[in-house]
Amino acid sequence: MDLELVTVGNELLLGFTHDTNARDLALAVAPAGGRIVRRATVGDEPHAIGDAVGQALARTGFVVTSGGLGPTSDDLTREAVAKELRRELKVDQSVLDDIVARFAKLRPGPMPASNRKQAEVPAAAEVLANAHGSAPGLWIDDDRGTVVLLPGVPSEFRAMAAEYLVPRIRERSGTAHRVQSRTLRTTGISESALADRLAESVASLADVEVAFLPSLRTVDIRVTASGEADVVSRRLDEAETLLRPILADDLYGAAEEDLAATVLEMLRQRDARLAVAESCTGGLIAARLTEVAGAGDTFLGGIVTYGNKAKTRDLGVQEDLIARVGAVSVEVAEAMVRGVTDRFGVDAAIAVTGIAGPSGGTSEKPVGTICLAAAWRGEIRVVKRHVPGSRYQVRRRAAQAALDLLRRML
Amino acid sequence: MDLELVTVGNELLLGFTHDTNARDLALAVAPAGGRIVRRATVGDEPHAIGDAVGQALARTGFVVTSGGLGPTSDDLTREAVAKELRRELKVDQSVLDDIVARFAKLRPGPMPASNRKQAEVPAAAEVLANAHGSAPGLWIDDDRGTVVLLPGVPSEFRAMAAEYLVPRIRERSGTAHRVQSRTLRTTGISESALADRLAESVASLADVEVAFLPSLRTVDIRVTASGEADVVSRRLDEAETLLRPILADDLYGAAEEDLAATVLEMLRQRDARLAVAESCTGGLIAARLTEVAGAGDTFLGGIVTYGNKAKTRDLGVQEDLIARVGAVSVEVAEAMVRGVTDRFGVDAAIAVTGIAGPSGGTSEKPVGTICLAAAWRGEIRVVKRHVPGSRYQVRRRAAQAALDLLRRML
Repeated sequence: MDLELVTVGNELLLGFTHDTNARDLALAVAPAGGRIVRRATVGDEPHAIGDAVGQALARTGFVVTSGGLGPTSDDLTREAVAKELRRELKVDQSVLDDIVARFAKLRPGPMPASNRKQAEVPAAAEVLANAHGSAPGLWIDDDRGTVVLLPGVPSEFRAMAAEYLVPRIRERSGTAHRVQSRTLRTTGISESALADRLAESVASLADVEVAFLPSLRTVDIRVTASGEADVVSRRLDEAETLLRPILADDLYGAAEEDLAATVLEMLRQRDARLAVAESCTGGLIAARLTEVAGAGDTFLGGIVTYGNKAKTRDLGVQEDLIARVGAVSVEVAEAMVRGVTDRFGVDAAIAVTGIAGPSGGTSEKPVGTICLAAAWRGEIRVVKRHVPGSRYQVRRRAAQAALDLLRRML
Repeated sequence: MDLELVTVGNELLLGFTHDTNARDLALAVAPAGGRIVRRATVGDEPHAIGDAVGQALARTGFVVTSGGLGPTSDDLTREAVAKELRRELKVDQSVLDDIVARFAKLRPGPMPASNRKQAEVPAAAEVLANAHGSAPGLWIDDDRGTVVLLPGVPSEFRAMAAEYLVPRIRERSGTAHRVQSRTLRTTGISESALADRLAESVASLADVEVAFLPSLRTVDIRVTASGEADVVSRRLDEAETLLRPILADDLYGAAEEDLAATVLEMLRQRDARLAVAESCTGGLIAARLTEVAGAGDTFLGGIVTYGNKAKTRDLGVQEDLIARVGAVSVEVAEAMVRGVTDRFGVDAAIAVTGIAGPSGGTSEKPVGTICLAAAWRGEIRVVKRHVPGSRYQVRRRAAQAALDLLRRML
């Protein structure tokens, strides 16, 4: 069942408030068979609100609005929708009684007159009680379609969407309809290379949508299917069975799984311990590893050697090696990984040195040059690469590449 | 100057991706006199994209799109806008050369064919170079108005909005109406305590709006004024002059400034060097410090002692001390800060030990117990606190509190 969402509020347009209702609604209605096909955000202006609701009704026939139901002069959704649907607004006595009673419980003294307008209801509209705030919602079935008005406060919006919208959408869309997704996470390969490699298989998958979602760390492959519950599961299973072998080693996990968690789990299965030595990533890898609950069983610690002295003192990197080949070199990365392995007495280790920028680059070693080393039970691999981007991006790409280097050795 | 934003992507409608570009754009254009008057989000569907752009053009005459410029088959914004504006798409050789060159730098082997379509340019469109990704932007001045196509990846979108959009909007909007904000950052004090302390001053400020924005690290105070450019500046200056002395030591910076940068700058002014010893924060503090460009002049390095052995071996914390008072104790935090100060030979140091959870808590030392120590030229301060929240939150609150402990000593 298709629907549109219109979120109302100057503060949304000004960027002062994060518009979380759109995301929350999308995730709430999907399992019930609802799909948001378009969204609009307008300011606190009756003409813009009415216009957006009218257009959405004409296109899709089912509109949810969020916001503009409060007591102040810039809360105008109720009036704008009533006008657009040519319905009169009248104070509903039982709604007014509820609001007065609620107010008396919260504060002493008389209710401000402005709250009275929250009791105004368009002709033939259904009032949706709001257990968490003073603004009731409204449900209007019109010749042109359905308009559902919900308050904008995220906790109230979420609760009322769950109470009123989701069950009715499930009813309208048929009990078995589902939209379901699975995510396969890859790393160490570009979005376009993945797209090319999977093109044929993706084309062969009927009724399954495949999206590529690149980020600094990963390229996620999201597979989405819709239809009756058992059909959806089967389609997703088929897609996964088809894609997994093609992704092979570039696939490291599912859903929201972080590569750091994958590496820790692989080490745990091998009863191994890990330590890290970081220069340009400056603690990022250690911080990611320790984000994982229970990391302490596997991860023993790390050394952040931002200065060269620390590389020599704490990791035993020879001073003359640094003088000869420079701190950013595969030789120093290798010496760092040996040093941290010995120091912590671990089976596995990672070391990173590089030039994160913005300064410090040379024509021979420009900003973005990273040298990585990984050690696994005596074997050592080193890599020198150039990664693009800002200081922030170079550091994160280096951390990800270093974790991935170790993963591929395990 | 009014503009509209059309964000494109199924993943936005499905709620899989946070739509941060709308907020970023609103905040970026406001000081230049730009105002987003309406937003739409559509899926990866040419008809919907063209329709949304066409309507926005008819209403407002200036449209920015975000997303759908990538190399894959679901990237359709370029085609949809060209069709809506009845312009032919042709491969631009110099754009193609740039993309090929960029690709060659990043990876060996030939460029995937799918990247080629990123070089397609509508007739008479201006190509906007993208320094951070392969998708260039497009600027089209049409009889019906202006359409600006930007990539959806947030970092690319932000950088290109700042480079191309903001200056041209400033030029077009002249000195007319401005909405401008300034942010004062505080730490170590609660939102409600701040609100109480500032209540009287805030009430005395005419034509200035004050908002309190709490986060894991800080409570930001955002002061907003609108009007002609010089009036706005004067109002913001007045507000800042009034509020700064009241905030006193709880104020540490402005705008987006991180406490780690503040601490590094204070140390640099004192010609001092810093090292850190981290247990429960596991590298978070080192990672934040090294996020700051040029940190290496001041920050020499750190030790992540996740296991107790490393605390003894690398920081000289006595084994029997840990056995007697436990690893999470002010005594161990103090021994850690002494150890790291001696090891690195620095003027300033921070040490953190704590229980981040979810497991490991006891009735005496529940999850959220943190022990911090800071050293500054021979003086040492230690603090034991309990902070609320998840593992993620406890770790970040501990890192922030430790940096703040050192800041208040300087």
